[in-house]
Amino acid sequence: MVDPERIAIIGLGLIGGSLALALRRARPMVRIIGIDLDPRARQQALEEGAVDAATPLEGAALEVCDTVVLSTPAQPLLEMLPAVAARMRLGALLTDVCGAKERICAAGALQDRVVFIGAHPMAGTEYRGFVAANPALFASCAVALCPPVGATDERARREGGSRLRSLWIAAGAGKLLDVDPAVHDRAVTFASHLPYLAAASVVESLLSAGEAAPLARELAAGGFRDTTRLAGDGTVGGAAALNRFIPEEARALAVRLRALAEELEHDPLRALERLDRLASERRRMHMPAVTANGTAPDLKLLPPR
Amino acid sequence: MVDPERIAIIGLGLIGGSLALALRRARPMVRIIGIDLDPRARQQALEEGAVDAATPLEGAALEVCDTVVLSTPAQPLLEMLPAVAARMRLGALLTDVCGAKERICAAGALQDRVVFIGAHPMAGTEYRGFVAANPALFASCAVALCPPVGATDERARREGGSRLRSLWIAAGAGKLLDVDPAVHDRAVTFASHLPYLAAASVVESLLSAGEAAPLARELAAGGFRDTTRLAGDGTVGGAAALNRFIPEEARALAVRLRALAEELEHDPLRALERLDRLASERRRMHMPAVTANGTAPDLKLLPPR
Repeated sequence: MVDPERIAIIGLGLIGGSLALALRRARPMVRIIGIDLDPRARQQALEEGAVDAATPLEGAALEVCDTVVLSTPAQPLLEMLPAVAARMRLGALLTDVCGAKERICAAGALQDRVVFIGAHPMAGTEYRGFVAANPALFASCAVALCPPVGATDERARREGGSRLRSLWIAAGAGKLLDVDPAVHDRAVTFASHLPYLAAASVVESLLSAGEAAPLARELAAGGFRDTTRLAGDGTVGGAAALNRFIPEEARALAVRLRALAEELEHDPLRALERLDRLASERRRMHMPAVTANGTAPDLKLLPPR
Repeated sequence: MVDPERIAIIGLGLIGGSLALALRRARPMVRIIGIDLDPRARQQALEEGAVDAATPLEGAALEVCDTVVLSTPAQPLLEMLPAVAARMRLGALLTDVCGAKERICAAGALQDRVVFIGAHPMAGTEYRGFVAANPALFASCAVALCPPVGATDERARREGGSRLRSLWIAAGAGKLLDVDPAVHDRAVTFASHLPYLAAASVVESLLSAGEAAPLARELAAGGFRDTTRLAGDGTVGGAAALNRFIPEEARALAVRLRALAEELEHDPLRALERLDRLASERRRMHMPAVTANGTAPDLKLLPPR
């Protein structure tokens, strides 16, 4: 009989917890070790059967794991990566779920003990912690996968890549996209980090509205709610802080917004034409309505390669 | 037998069309005249039984109406207001649905033929036209109501106010808020117009992303979709263009965004603390999840006063 696959998930928050729940359902035989600083998250993950064992990082038997998934916030993830790799068995797979890939993959490439493959599932909600974890979070979502770095053994790389694809398909992913880390970070700037920073700034504006704030809250309807929902997901900020494209593109967004304000003031007809064109473009994107897991329901399932 | 109430709705788009459908359901005896430039909108409103008669503005019997609702885009609404008032019977009620109230109410105050009461239902979707109209659009929504202006006859003002409250409650409103037009415009700046302009700017950034745009679209998930949904509603721009608080506050939002970008670059820990605090504040707003009509389901129904 073959030994069961062993997967450690470091960080039992929304993403790590959901991944554990999804894998547990899809692959009852896999042995999942849940790792978290917070004893309540460990306790809850055990009670819900998401993990077979739960432990702080210090005591975790990383050396027996085939796969270790880093799913802590971005900055600690970047910092713990080398120490985690050093405790794993030679040629095992180390991966992550961070929303910025260039600096994480560069850190993964600085060691040669394990195969590191950066990944980024395009799913989330504004809630966090294991309490918000949901086995359907990744249903049909797209997952970006970066090229393997670190250990150069070809067989280990092939096996690691195949194991990671299989893991995300088991978790429910609808689409696996092979991307270069810098290309990923530039694209995610527009797809996620700028929307997030804009949403956070809009929330900050409301909070700074002084006397107007109470009525503004009463008048806030679907538009405000939708536009700012992403601002509730504090984890995006950590990834944005690691994304080298952000400072320039966020400044460009600010310039765009300022120009729009000037145009609305001095040439409203032209501003309205511009806004009308943007409205048409946005509607033409045909983004699906909201689903339970917050992701697009219509992406196609791609087989592993 | 008392004559049935006669209501004309000028503009059978998303808001006017939804109002006609909602009133038709709640008050089968009311006679509704639908007015629109577009023969297809008129035809469809007739076919769906939303209106009893449909006509272009020129031929409309405004003089027999007790209430006329202006629900065209903001700029034409502002421009047609005096001519519409001039064609109505003395002391009748003229009202509107525009998202900016100060300039509209000021225009309403420049005549003394009819009672003008500015209103603003806090509801919408990114779709437009009568095809998107929905009798449940206003279910539980908040409606801002401004003080009566124009005709000074006390009885006409009282009757007009009572008729307007009754109209919005019949249409499904969950909350009627009496507000000063300038106070409304300042509050709606934060509740709606800044979120809209931020959303439009984020869409424009994606469209201007060049080589990164195709992958950005593939990676765009729930966060992008929610943050930018409002940008698809081109009608908000017209109201924002009439809102005198917008230029200054949009510039302030741009400054905020730029400062956030600088902080992420030069003092990421502090930026992340700031973003984390905003995330908590946003979650603490406890805005309801999305409902079919895009509005909050938990507002209380206030009786007319």
